[in-house]
Amino acid sequence: MPRLRLALAQTNPVVGDLAGNSQHILEAAREAAAQGADLFAVGEMALSGYPIEDLASRPSFLAESHAAVEKLAKDLAAAGLGELPVVVGHPDGPYEPRLIGTSNAPSAIAQNRASVLQHGEVKARYAKHHLPNYSVFDEYRIFIPGDELLVLRIKGADVALIICEDLWRDGGPLARVLQADAGLLLVINASPFERDKNDVRLPLVTRRAVETDTIVAYVNIVGGQDDLVFDGDSVVVDSTGAILARAPQFEEHLLVLDLDVAAASDVGLPENVARVELDASDDGVSTPALQPDIAVLPDDRQQLWNALVLGLRDYVGKNGFRSVILGLSGGIDSAVCAAIAADAIGADRVWGVSMPSKYSSGHSRSDADDLAENIGLHYSVEAIADLVSPIETQLELTGTAAENVQARIRGIILMGLSNLDGHLVLTTGNKTELSVGYSTIYGDSAGGFAPIKDVPKLLVWELARWRNEYAAGRGETPPIPANSIDKPPSAELRPDQTDQDTLPPYEVLDAILDAYITNALGREDVIAMGFDEETVDFVTTLVDRSEWKRRQGAIGPKISGMAFGRDRRLPITYRPTTP
Amino acid sequence: MPRLRLALAQTNPVVGDLAGNSQHILEAAREAAAQGADLFAVGEMALSGYPIEDLASRPSFLAESHAAVEKLAKDLAAAGLGELPVVVGHPDGPYEPRLIGTSNAPSAIAQNRASVLQHGEVKARYAKHHLPNYSVFDEYRIFIPGDELLVLRIKGADVALIICEDLWRDGGPLARVLQADAGLLLVINASPFERDKNDVRLPLVTRRAVETDTIVAYVNIVGGQDDLVFDGDSVVVDSTGAILARAPQFEEHLLVLDLDVAAASDVGLPENVARVELDASDDGVSTPALQPDIAVLPDDRQQLWNALVLGLRDYVGKNGFRSVILGLSGGIDSAVCAAIAADAIGADRVWGVSMPSKYSSGHSRSDADDLAENIGLHYSVEAIADLVSPIETQLELTGTAAENVQARIRGIILMGLSNLDGHLVLTTGNKTELSVGYSTIYGDSAGGFAPIKDVPKLLVWELARWRNEYAAGRGETPPIPANSIDKPPSAELRPDQTDQDTLPPYEVLDAILDAYITNALGREDVIAMGFDEETVDFVTTLVDRSEWKRRQGAIGPKISGMAFGRDRRLPITYRPTTP
Repeated sequence: MPRLRLALAQTNPVVGDLAGNSQHILEAAREAAAQGADLFAVGEMALSGYPIEDLASRPSFLAESHAAVEKLAKDLAAAGLGELPVVVGHPDGPYEPRLIGTSNAPSAIAQNRASVLQHGEVKARYAKHHLPNYSVFDEYRIFIPGDELLVLRIKGADVALIICEDLWRDGGPLARVLQADAGLLLVINASPFERDKNDVRLPLVTRRAVETDTIVAYVNIVGGQDDLVFDGDSVVVDSTGAILARAPQFEEHLLVLDLDVAAASDVGLPENVARVELDASDDGVSTPALQPDIAVLPDDRQQLWNALVLGLRDYVGKNGFRSVILGLSGGIDSAVCAAIAADAIGADRVWGVSMPSKYSSGHSRSDADDLAENIGLHYSVEAIADLVSPIETQLELTGTAAENVQARIRGIILMGLSNLDGHLVLTTGNKTELSVGYSTIYGDSAGGFAPIKDVPKLLVWELARWRNEYAAGRGETPPIPANSIDKPPSAELRPDQTDQDTLPPYEVLDAILDAYITNALGREDVIAMGFDEETVDFVTTLVDRSEWKRRQGAIGPKISGMAFGRDRRLPITYRPTTP
Repeated sequence: MPRLRLALAQTNPVVGDLAGNSQHILEAAREAAAQGADLFAVGEMALSGYPIEDLASRPSFLAESHAAVEKLAKDLAAAGLGELPVVVGHPDGPYEPRLIGTSNAPSAIAQNRASVLQHGEVKARYAKHHLPNYSVFDEYRIFIPGDELLVLRIKGADVALIICEDLWRDGGPLARVLQADAGLLLVINASPFERDKNDVRLPLVTRRAVETDTIVAYVNIVGGQDDLVFDGDSVVVDSTGAILARAPQFEEHLLVLDLDVAAASDVGLPENVARVELDASDDGVSTPALQPDIAVLPDDRQQLWNALVLGLRDYVGKNGFRSVILGLSGGIDSAVCAAIAADAIGADRVWGVSMPSKYSSGHSRSDADDLAENIGLHYSVEAIADLVSPIETQLELTGTAAENVQARIRGIILMGLSNLDGHLVLTTGNKTELSVGYSTIYGDSAGGFAPIKDVPKLLVWELARWRNEYAAGRGETPPIPANSIDKPPSAELRPDQTDQDTLPPYEVLDAILDAYITNALGREDVIAMGFDEETVDFVTTLVDRSEWKRRQGAIGPKISGMAFGRDRRLPITYRPTTP
């Protein structure tokens, strides 16, 4: 059996930065070559970042991308890496707009491609066949599908190459892998994290390995891009389903391992399969066998925490912010956001502001003080009473109108300090709040990034407890004050207010929201689960009426199967027929 | 030749309101029957409103919709309208999720359908074949395509039935219309307005009539739904391309006319065509021939104005607001928004607030006074100096940070008055401002609806002049003060500021934005048009960097070929490779 030394790099690209991403890929290829790799691959769209959205409909961007691939091939050769076959994902075009399948954008002029570079040239190309157009994906909008499987013959072994969704769907190129009798199936991916997705992805890879009788090598990108977090978790599985290698989640990593791949057979080439012969690099054979990495996934809560941390870190870093600022109310949400921020970029880049009002309790201030001290972030106090009262008085505001002024003055303070010093403002609302509109628009919702917008309230508490235990287990100071976790939550916009004055208990609320939002159940179905009819109507009506606020909300990392934003697209103007 | 009396109703549905929309369709059917119609049709999704977005993935909503169609059939019969064949567009399902074409959402469980109701029953069904998935459309995300053309045989004539995009694409059901030798092609549509779209739509209808050798009857819905405005403009064209009837734009209308349709031929039924025989109603023959309406389109600027007016009116009405409130700066943008609002819902439902600062010029106040008087809206003045200075002082804000406080205090005032009295807050930014981020987020951008967000600055002036001339031509008071049109635009956040301190002249700016945004040209292409390189870089960088603000912006009516929002989907995190 031919032995191939395979190198998979899970890189963290920046959308649009063709030159920077290319350079990064080149450096990873250099390391792979130094380790004697015979074949090197990075993830889907690793050259451009993912998702590129409607950049795919700009002819100029596609032309630049096309040129960047050719330049990368030349740069690799110039760096003495020309012998190493390099598989890189990128958008390509512009192609003539064309109609596809039953319908398509007249403007689709791009393909989602993998190119194979060697000796300074693009030796082979593959275009993604199955275009996901559900959940957060809009690929049928922007890409023209390919229709041909690519097989690379290298060192006497056949390596079939496909992209991401192609692995998930029966038919298309996957069906031809078995016909072509390939020994290795290389899949390049840009597959975003969501909770429990590993429980679907790994079994899929395993099943496909068995079905196609190949070793499957699955390489994913890593990093935060707006509201998505790519988790890496690249993996290699043999044709019995055994894991041969696995890269760690949420960090860049070069996975290198030796594979004994079935020798290329003499089977005729099936229809819609192209085969390209690559030269073998010289130095792959003589090196000693490698012991591959097999990373172990951390527990569920740590995975979620890591996703939130990476989502924030990359939003800050890729957009060039030096620091973040957030309001510290003494409550659990802002405490968790502060802890995430400190883990993401270091406490010395985090500014916390306590903004007590006349309704703020003593513990609001003291819990915020404790948090700031535990974490070691920059901390200041700006009382709002003297800023609020002139507005209340001049406009004669009362009730909710007056309460909202407090939240909006806090928004003005944070935005003002951001305007002075360039901080990114974090808004600390959780998913439960966003669901029912329990926030003041242009007030506490003001900010450029919402670290916990996809985290329901009960999970916020769970993550806070986990983070404190994690710190304690490492002999570190638990960041989140116990009192912020244990006290009843309150917006503190009027005397003695608590969330449960207005809302059902969070155990009930989060369960109804999960049914109505995540599972897209209707009112009757939710009631049939055993919830009180009046409560269900109250909650679902709040959800429907808050859509306009959510539309104007900051982005934040998706960690659930149904996040607000591009994942769940609903009209603002919506009048449900009453039963 | 059989003579058919055809009735097309362009109705204005509310998304989700199955019961209300059904009742409305029934009333239109009653009027059609009273006029002796043989066949009655409403637009695509007239039963549910359009677009329903991810409501299509809720099984409960689809089941309710399915039931509503059957109920409408029964209600029509109960109202004595059972003989009249009624064609109605609606979503249907839930169907088993299935894979379609090259890829599809695992969650697509709906079809976009037309049902034909008679004698209390659903006699025939058609499912849309071509699913638009470009521009503002996401239909491939949510619908399962149909694959069969429907032909209705009525009074000895064959009427082929298709839905919207099916008319735009070659192949599919349209290809079978000629094979089936139909005499009339009925197309139900939900086709949103954009500038000059009539110049594409009418020639398309005409071309298809000639190609298929049929009379084409095209019925569209009408009304505003979030950021879309459906313009109606239903039309009937004979097989030579001559217009037989045309309904007015932007209003509900029942178009009734007599058609001499070719007799059904004995041609065998082609594959993938279903034919259903309908009973003829009794009273169609004896009535005298009708003189159909042929509406004439108003000029371009009036069409745009009408679109903006209807977009705002329906957002207000369908969401149950009694009134709107907006800041009046004395400038052109707020003046035009106030005039649109008064035209949409009447000046007695419009509240204007002048919010002068210490930097406001005398004319800011007097121009706002004049506007309020011209229009006759509710008017008040709230000086902001005493509200701004405590914040500036406490936070020691200077420069842009201080300027933004003025805008944000104005936002707080409008939101506070809205919270007190339930007004919808209008935000008055134009497309040019939104493009380059020339606005204060949570300040002047605060609001639930943005009437001119898709109107570039030069067009704002043009529409203002047009609206004044239109008033003058009718002997009415021109609403917009001449001084608001003629003076140099300024944000007035610092002494003697004008827009052109910071921005290129609007003639240049709007032209660059049109190239970069509407036409999706790259930097090099825009420079090649003859613009100064430095200016192009300045403008395109501003556009890219403002994406985060636009994402948090209010919705407003799309009138261009490329509106912000669902029409143009770009990443926030984006680092263009520098040349």
